[in-house]
Amino acid sequence: MEPNLSQTLSLLARTPAALDSFLRDLPETWTLRNEGENTWSPLDVIAHLISGERTDWIPRVRIILQFGENKTFEPFDMQGYIQERQDKTLEQLLEEFARLRSENLSELRAMNLRPEDLQRRGLHPSLGVVTLSQMLSTWAVHDLTHLHQISRVMAHQYRDAVGPWSKYLGVLQCAGHSST
Amino acid sequence: MEPNLSQTLSLLARTPAALDSFLRDLPETWTLRNEGENTWSPLDVIAHLISGERTDWIPRVRIILQFGENKTFEPFDMQGYIQERQDKTLEQLLEEFARLRSENLSELRAMNLRPEDLQRRGLHPSLGVVTLSQMLSTWAVHDLTHLHQISRVMAHQYRDAVGPWSKYLGVLQCAGHSST
Repeated sequence: MEPNLSQTLSLLARTPAALDSFLRDLPETWTLRNEGENTWSPLDVIAHLISGERTDWIPRVRIILQFGENKTFEPFDMQGYIQERQDKTLEQLLEEFARLRSENLSELRAMNLRPEDLQRRGLHPSLGVVTLSQMLSTWAVHDLTHLHQISRVMAHQYRDAVGPWSKYLGVLQCAGHSST
Repeated sequence: MEPNLSQTLSLLARTPAALDSFLRDLPETWTLRNEGENTWSPLDVIAHLISGERTDWIPRVRIILQFGENKTFEPFDMQGYIQERQDKTLEQLLEEFARLRSENLSELRAMNLRPEDLQRRGLHPSLGVVTLSQMLSTWAVHDLTHLHQISRVMAHQYRDAVGPWSKYLGVLQCAGHSST
């Protein structure tokens, strides 16, 4: 397997267990609160990750392999998380995310992508031409963006509680590069 | 137990397992690289967390309970991580962090802190008067600061690999509020 792809898969495979270890059965102060109007709670983020597993990454891999630059990806629905979280507990969402991620990585491994496949190109609705390699790397960094966001959203709940220490705590200085 | 303290302990108890699930056996691209000169890799961060478990949080709790504002805390050694990481693998560090955190939380629970204890005051070498409640809240947000940092450091390794997607990935916009 191409080294970069192997690294990417290693990370993608671990995210669900890491989120489960961190968030399962935590008090709702940490998991259900957000950073204010039109921002996401950790639960919302997990629902968004589920939405991506269903409609974003693997469907786009299939489009690249089948159609190349001749078929633009469906725009990703940033509101898709609302349907995913409906009537679900955080624990149910964590399990759903783990199941979908595992299935998607199995499908990806079964594709046996060669280095030349990773250079195949697709057409993103707003970014234009992208490569499969770039998209798979983005999948991993997208996980990291949301771990970064979850840690920031959780820290926000204790912004006042830490008193004068706030100036030493980097996460409290983060301006929120990904409010959603 | 005072609700805020219970929430704080819930988070503190989960951090070691979350970091273990995420980082154990990951390729070194993710765990040993940093963001450039004088910045920390994920491995360095775990060594820093160990250093805090040994010399920062619980020792300061003891000082507050025993001496109140009459004894200034020892300044925390930001270079302490260098000794902790020496000759250790990431996996050894993750285990050491988990062991120390578990011991420290057991000690904290055994103190049976009452709400009025949480208002007791101590003297921080640069911040001045702080309360025990503020310090315990800071312990939790300090974990979150370093999760935030680890996700940012890891994302940095794929800054070029994601190509045009970089502008959509919040973690890549983070200016690094906690370079160490």
